[in-house]
Amino acid sequence: MNVHSEKAPVVTMRWVGEVDGYLELIDQTKLPSELVQMPCHDVETVWEAIRALRVRGAPAIGIAAAYGVCLGLQTFTGSSHADFLHRLEEVSSYLESSRPTAVNLFWAMNRLRTRARQEDQRESSEELLACLLEEARRIEAEDLEACQRIGAHGAELIEPETGVLTHCNAGGLATAGYGTALAVIYAAHEQGKAIHVYADETRPLLQGARLTAWELHQHGVPVTLICDSMAAQVMREGRVRCVVTGADRIAANGDTANKIGTYSLALLAEAHGIPFYVAAPTSTFDLSLSSGEQIPIEQRANEEVTHMQLFPTAPEGIGVYNPAFDVTPARLIRGIVCEHGVISPVNTDQIAKFVSR
Amino acid sequence: MNVHSEKAPVVTMRWVGEVDGYLELIDQTKLPSELVQMPCHDVETVWEAIRALRVRGAPAIGIAAAYGVCLGLQTFTGSSHADFLHRLEEVSSYLESSRPTAVNLFWAMNRLRTRARQEDQRESSEELLACLLEEARRIEAEDLEACQRIGAHGAELIEPETGVLTHCNAGGLATAGYGTALAVIYAAHEQGKAIHVYADETRPLLQGARLTAWELHQHGVPVTLICDSMAAQVMREGRVRCVVTGADRIAANGDTANKIGTYSLALLAEAHGIPFYVAAPTSTFDLSLSSGEQIPIEQRANEEVTHMQLFPTAPEGIGVYNPAFDVTPARLIRGIVCEHGVISPVNTDQIAKFVSR
Repeated sequence: MNVHSEKAPVVTMRWVGEVDGYLELIDQTKLPSELVQMPCHDVETVWEAIRALRVRGAPAIGIAAAYGVCLGLQTFTGSSHADFLHRLEEVSSYLESSRPTAVNLFWAMNRLRTRARQEDQRESSEELLACLLEEARRIEAEDLEACQRIGAHGAELIEPETGVLTHCNAGGLATAGYGTALAVIYAAHEQGKAIHVYADETRPLLQGARLTAWELHQHGVPVTLICDSMAAQVMREGRVRCVVTGADRIAANGDTANKIGTYSLALLAEAHGIPFYVAAPTSTFDLSLSSGEQIPIEQRANEEVTHMQLFPTAPEGIGVYNPAFDVTPARLIRGIVCEHGVISPVNTDQIAKFVSR
Repeated sequence: MNVHSEKAPVVTMRWVGEVDGYLELIDQTKLPSELVQMPCHDVETVWEAIRALRVRGAPAIGIAAAYGVCLGLQTFTGSSHADFLHRLEEVSSYLESSRPTAVNLFWAMNRLRTRARQEDQRESSEELLACLLEEARRIEAEDLEACQRIGAHGAELIEPETGVLTHCNAGGLATAGYGTALAVIYAAHEQGKAIHVYADETRPLLQGARLTAWELHQHGVPVTLICDSMAAQVMREGRVRCVVTGADRIAANGDTANKIGTYSLALLAEAHGIPFYVAAPTSTFDLSLSSGEQIPIEQRANEEVTHMQLFPTAPEGIGVYNPAFDVTPARLIRGIVCEHGVISPVNTDQIAKFVSR
């Protein structure tokens, strides 16, 4: 994450060393109280970091998993090609079982599988691993570049002086750096636009309060934290005139899965005549799904809702419904900002034009 | 609060003894972890209990304040009528400064002022105090009766088998007992209707998670806790087919102030074609205000949003917007259930018919 402030730059994750190196990532569950760099020396640690949301955000999950594959293959460099490729399949399938909704995870695994097939003339499995590490680094570098382009395209949608509402964290911490929804905000801010961000705290895990408010504060972007239930009120009062969120998976028709609460925001924006935008790289599109109904929605543990830190905040044994995501229908989305430009109107034909590039 | 379960009945508050007695109330900030009865021996303790939400819910605030007036007058029973009435004004104005939005507080203070004027032929100020205590008890008894009638009228709106969404706590704990929105649910449940309640947790102070889920659980009403941001999703999935909330102040035209997030729910209900009902006694109406724009909205401390228990959940010094209430326009309310029946359509004429009774 590029932090343009006096404070030291913060990097969501980085690979340390060469093929025998390791992955270091910020344990985002500790933010904002502590900035802890967590070393990952094996694939199991990466799986747990994704599952427990130590690293989260669709693009960041894809990148972390790509490096996780490299970690899982480090002890197989003396093996035959067949054994190495078998292990690659084992490791990537294992990582795919960490979280079901963000498609970038599956997309990244498929990039590594494809690269391995392309490189099967390599003499040693050590060379093969070097190719895969190069591919993981490329995925990371491409993501950073995509984020910067998303920022540039999206900033054009932002008025010179305005309030913008965002949900969850689609910032530098959710990507290789710079972010998706927050890239739009950072770019507009860098152009000198007077933006004031309203950040939904984003229950149950408070990524808006803990991560987005923290990132924006570090960048010097004016930010006000609100509870999710206050979004309609700030729209009504004219405090925000546009909504921008990230995405975890976008179907071929533009239906978009994102953090639970996004669908609600899109409806509230419509009721107030406020444009609702999604910002995501093309790696977040899943053209194999014709609509959002086919997107698998992760259900997470009750304790995320019934406990805050270690304290119970609800009666013991109470029933809980805790879907981690919802699907916003394409009709509620004014435009999707990707690295190639702004897809608008949002429909199957327009998406096919941008994503097939 | 009448609790129809094996567990011991829970009473929101009660006056213990006679004119020299004291008020005992449940400290609701300790629920659901601890059920603590808090004795209040002076008016300052009652003021703090209202301010800190130890007792909350519009009708309950009115009742607690009425008893608070009696406490504030106990040391003035030897005084002249003039001194006693001066102190009455002092004490009631002081209590009115505790919270600005719930009109039941001001309504209850006016009932005591009016009663004191009516009784000014009394020989001693001790007799006057006895009249005021009687009036406070009457306010409490009338509220309980109103809640039961609200339940009976409202239950007719509930389908035999349905999911109902509620927000914050408009239950026994918010009233003398039985509740307003929850009275509707309790009455329908007692009639054998198969109701499943979805309770919004209600950030920032989690009255839905801590109080509503607890009350419903005690009553044996099936309840599922959700985060506020999940309401649109449970509507879309068909899990709820009606929304019922309480109210803190209802203007002459039906615009309704209630816990922040209520306006959002009313818009989401409209978007899904689901009826949105308000349940409140006539003491919650403020016919002196022609519309909701004139209702004062309490702003509360940033720490309610930035801290959970003692733990920070947001960066230090972050800007926060924390309105405690919002106003739902009458056009979004299908009906208001009061003790005299269901006001529908919701408009100035209809309300005048019911509230002038």
